[in-house]
Amino acid sequence: MPTLRLALCQVNPTVGDLAGNAGLVRSWSRQAAESGAQLVAFPEMMLTGYPVEDLVFRRSFVAASRAALERLAADLASDGLGELPVLVGYLDADGPPQVSGDAEPGRGARNAAALLHHGGIAATYFKHHLPNYGVFDEDRYFVPGDMLTVVRVGGVDVALTICEDLWQAGGPFAAARQAGVGLVLNINGSPYELNKDDIRLPLVRRRAAEAGATIAYVNMIGGQDELVFEGDSMIVTADGTLLARAPQFVEHLLVHDVELPAAQERPGPDHELADGLRVVRAEVGELPPAPTGPAATGGVIEPVADEAEVWQALVLGLRDYVNKNRFPSVVLGLSGGIDSAVVAALSVDALGPDRVVGVSLPSQHSSEHSREDAAELAKRTGLDYRTEPIQPMVDTFLANMSLSGVTVENLQARVRGVVLMALSNQEGHLVLTTGNKSELAVGYSTLYGDSVGGFNPVKDVWKTLIWRLAKWRNADATRRGETPPIPENSIGKPPSAELSPGQLDSDTLPDYDVLDPILIGYVDGDLGRDGLVGSGHDPAVVDRVLRMVDTAEYKRRQSAPGTKISMKAFGRDRRLPITNRWREDS
Amino acid sequence: MPTLRLALCQVNPTVGDLAGNAGLVRSWSRQAAESGAQLVAFPEMMLTGYPVEDLVFRRSFVAASRAALERLAADLASDGLGELPVLVGYLDADGPPQVSGDAEPGRGARNAAALLHHGGIAATYFKHHLPNYGVFDEDRYFVPGDMLTVVRVGGVDVALTICEDLWQAGGPFAAARQAGVGLVLNINGSPYELNKDDIRLPLVRRRAAEAGATIAYVNMIGGQDELVFEGDSMIVTADGTLLARAPQFVEHLLVHDVELPAAQERPGPDHELADGLRVVRAEVGELPPAPTGPAATGGVIEPVADEAEVWQALVLGLRDYVNKNRFPSVVLGLSGGIDSAVVAALSVDALGPDRVVGVSLPSQHSSEHSREDAAELAKRTGLDYRTEPIQPMVDTFLANMSLSGVTVENLQARVRGVVLMALSNQEGHLVLTTGNKSELAVGYSTLYGDSVGGFNPVKDVWKTLIWRLAKWRNADATRRGETPPIPENSIGKPPSAELSPGQLDSDTLPDYDVLDPILIGYVDGDLGRDGLVGSGHDPAVVDRVLRMVDTAEYKRRQSAPGTKISMKAFGRDRRLPITNRWREDS
Repeated sequence: MPTLRLALCQVNPTVGDLAGNAGLVRSWSRQAAESGAQLVAFPEMMLTGYPVEDLVFRRSFVAASRAALERLAADLASDGLGELPVLVGYLDADGPPQVSGDAEPGRGARNAAALLHHGGIAATYFKHHLPNYGVFDEDRYFVPGDMLTVVRVGGVDVALTICEDLWQAGGPFAAARQAGVGLVLNINGSPYELNKDDIRLPLVRRRAAEAGATIAYVNMIGGQDELVFEGDSMIVTADGTLLARAPQFVEHLLVHDVELPAAQERPGPDHELADGLRVVRAEVGELPPAPTGPAATGGVIEPVADEAEVWQALVLGLRDYVNKNRFPSVVLGLSGGIDSAVVAALSVDALGPDRVVGVSLPSQHSSEHSREDAAELAKRTGLDYRTEPIQPMVDTFLANMSLSGVTVENLQARVRGVVLMALSNQEGHLVLTTGNKSELAVGYSTLYGDSVGGFNPVKDVWKTLIWRLAKWRNADATRRGETPPIPENSIGKPPSAELSPGQLDSDTLPDYDVLDPILIGYVDGDLGRDGLVGSGHDPAVVDRVLRMVDTAEYKRRQSAPGTKISMKAFGRDRRLPITNRWREDS
Repeated sequence: MPTLRLALCQVNPTVGDLAGNAGLVRSWSRQAAESGAQLVAFPEMMLTGYPVEDLVFRRSFVAASRAALERLAADLASDGLGELPVLVGYLDADGPPQVSGDAEPGRGARNAAALLHHGGIAATYFKHHLPNYGVFDEDRYFVPGDMLTVVRVGGVDVALTICEDLWQAGGPFAAARQAGVGLVLNINGSPYELNKDDIRLPLVRRRAAEAGATIAYVNMIGGQDELVFEGDSMIVTADGTLLARAPQFVEHLLVHDVELPAAQERPGPDHELADGLRVVRAEVGELPPAPTGPAATGGVIEPVADEAEVWQALVLGLRDYVNKNRFPSVVLGLSGGIDSAVVAALSVDALGPDRVVGVSLPSQHSSEHSREDAAELAKRTGLDYRTEPIQPMVDTFLANMSLSGVTVENLQARVRGVVLMALSNQEGHLVLTTGNKSELAVGYSTLYGDSVGGFNPVKDVWKTLIWRLAKWRNADATRRGETPPIPENSIGKPPSAELSPGQLDSDTLPDYDVLDPILIGYVDGDLGRDGLVGSGHDPAVVDRVLRMVDTAEYKRRQSAPGTKISMKAFGRDRRLPITNRWREDS
């Protein structure tokens, strides 16, 4: 059986940075070549970054993507890598790109992959299955491909596929068997969700069995607005053996020698079809020579605990939002509570203490321990700690307006927001907001108050998970002989917004142990009232909670972006009207 | 030729209000019956309202929609309207509704229409063409229908179609000719865009010719979050004659006697196909008797000037957002400038002066004329006028923090935001923000400052159009013998944010006469740099403006909803990444 040394380049492209992404392809292809690779694959939409969203409608951008691809092919050859076949995702179009709103769609944009070789393009593939659910809107953007592209590489027939092709039945994986394919390359921009990796491997196994071929799955890593891509690249044989598996959330070169079946000689029908797709065949004549020396093995990474996985996802999502948008630093309010403590710890892990400013914003209602806990957090993490009392400003508002009750609570939160934005304007930091998913769900926040910020690292983290993360992070620090960053008091004390004397979250909300399961059922699971009550929750509590969730939609509509880690994050995942009279207890 | 008295009920349903919407169907069907109607049609998704977005995934909601439809059919019969065939849009599903993210889509949700008669459902149709561009995501929600539903009513074969079926080639309109249809009912939830009505009539004419049938087009009116539905219901014959046309933006009962071809006797094939759709035939046995007396004529409304059309759209969009969300009143800042003056005038037109609070928020930089112009506006409109000086609060911030330059400008805007929100919290008003489309495009606003608000009536209005609207509204008032609401000084003076001494918009931005055309080309038209320079714009200005637009994406992501009036509104129409290194001058 032939052996091919595959290199999967699990890298971190940046949306819109054609030159930078092409540079990544060149440098990682060189590394792959130096490892003796004979076939290299990069992720989906590598050249443009992913997802580019409505940039697809910008003819100038599509043209630039095509030009960048051709330039890259030429550059790889001039880099001395011309013999190395390199698969990259990019943005293409049949002709003039599809105009949005064109009621008679014409020739349109393509989510494409090109195999570059000898300074040119040896083969092209257009993504067949287009995801149009959850965070995806690929029916808005792309025309589906109707081909199966098979390239003979080193005597092995290799099919080219993209992401969703794997997740839906039929399409190129089904056609691959009929077309005698020995290896399927599947390039991805697959966003992270907790435990999606537990689904991914069985799915790849299933498709490998269907295709009767080895699957080499390469995924990008990195943050892009609310999405974080997790990597988890892998190679799986037709009989389900996991040959190699990359870690999550880091750039990684996965190199592995794979035994593959030799391509069958086939009578060449003029118009070959497999499972309804037209088969387009090509051949890559020359390859880098078979490497000598020991076999390359990619290794199989051990899975990590959920909390570790989520923490890494959040760190990466935050780091990339800050760095890709070229912020020098971040600033956040430190209440002494657990949400801001977790965000502070994430920030220091993502950026280093020198790039994190934490601000205590005490009012007359702030407990001594809230200030102490904030100061302790600052000491343990080494972040830049400030104190900006808000009472003088609050008092001036109160002296000039007739305000009472909840209005005064909200006023304090808003003065804090003004202070943080002033620091941001004055010193250049990105403001982070720290509202967790449970608060966002029930609207337990002040619009333009504590919700102020350009990014929310914990937007998709239920309160109960916040506690788990904090405990895990401290324990992990201890395991590694480091200082636990989060003061134990912040973890242990009852949550409070401290906007009025003695206030506790539990004055207004059910305990989070009761609240979160209801929210998960309603928000993530789209259960109705009956479903939730049927799961055993108190009907009166269910009704109250659902009403809070429904009436908070307008707040969520204006909220800062944050990293998706669940199957249903507030944002593109969950699109509900603000004006909405439907109530589950109707 | 048979004559049928058609009644098109151009009404205003509310998303989620199944009972209320059913009530509208009952009361308007009664009015139609009293006018002698023999066939009645209501808009798309009448029962649920439109668009319901991710409520489609809520099994409880789909079940409620189906139950509400059956209840409505029974109620119409018990109302004594059983003989009257009534077509209503609703939400259906084949079986259990499509689960979002289900990689193997199963039986799914349907955008449906049902013809109710004699207490039951005589015929059903599922929308075939599903729009998935612009503001629409119907591929996310619905499985397309594959049928042509033809009901014999009073001896005429009537096809049932929904909205997008009209806008794309092929589908039921193409099949209708083959199936011998005499009348096509087309029910709609068609959102307004300036001059869409000029496209609609030629389109209906074209499809009527293709179908060889009269088309009765009924559209809803009303505001739903960022969309406003415009009505413009009409009846057009196969030879292109416009028989009747309803006004825009008002509820309207359009009744017209239409001569229609008698249905041909057809040999009934077991499995009839027309243009690839399976033809489903039904018959409505009994009708209300042919009315006696003079023929009913719906009349043909005269088109109105663009400014009048836009003004009505904005008033309706605002009124419905406020009322459907049960706000008692609105509050906005009055700077003396034209944007807030236009929003104030819109508010008073939408809600009446008693429900509008205008607040002058002077600082030390506020000119005397800005206060005078605000007061004059209040006087002319009768709104509830307040003054809340912000300088004391600004001074306290400045005394407690070291701030300078733009930070101080932003601080003033944010203190204003805090004041307005405090009034909102204290008194229950919805805060309106007044940033026009040009400002939103280039980011010429303070996040959490002047951008504060739950709704923005002028979000989709270019600055140059703001001026045209203001002049039109004043002239219109004069024509009607009323007081022009907007002080002439607010229209004539150079725009200024007044955040620093002598500040003018033109310090930072090109004149709006130069800026708006560039923005329209870039934002609405997706032109690239080359296209814009090719249109004759100064390359340096183009580069500067495009950079401002691109870097303002994060602000727009958190902006308040506002009424769409153009073909590309900021919001669901235009989905761009925040993290985005693509620059047109790359």
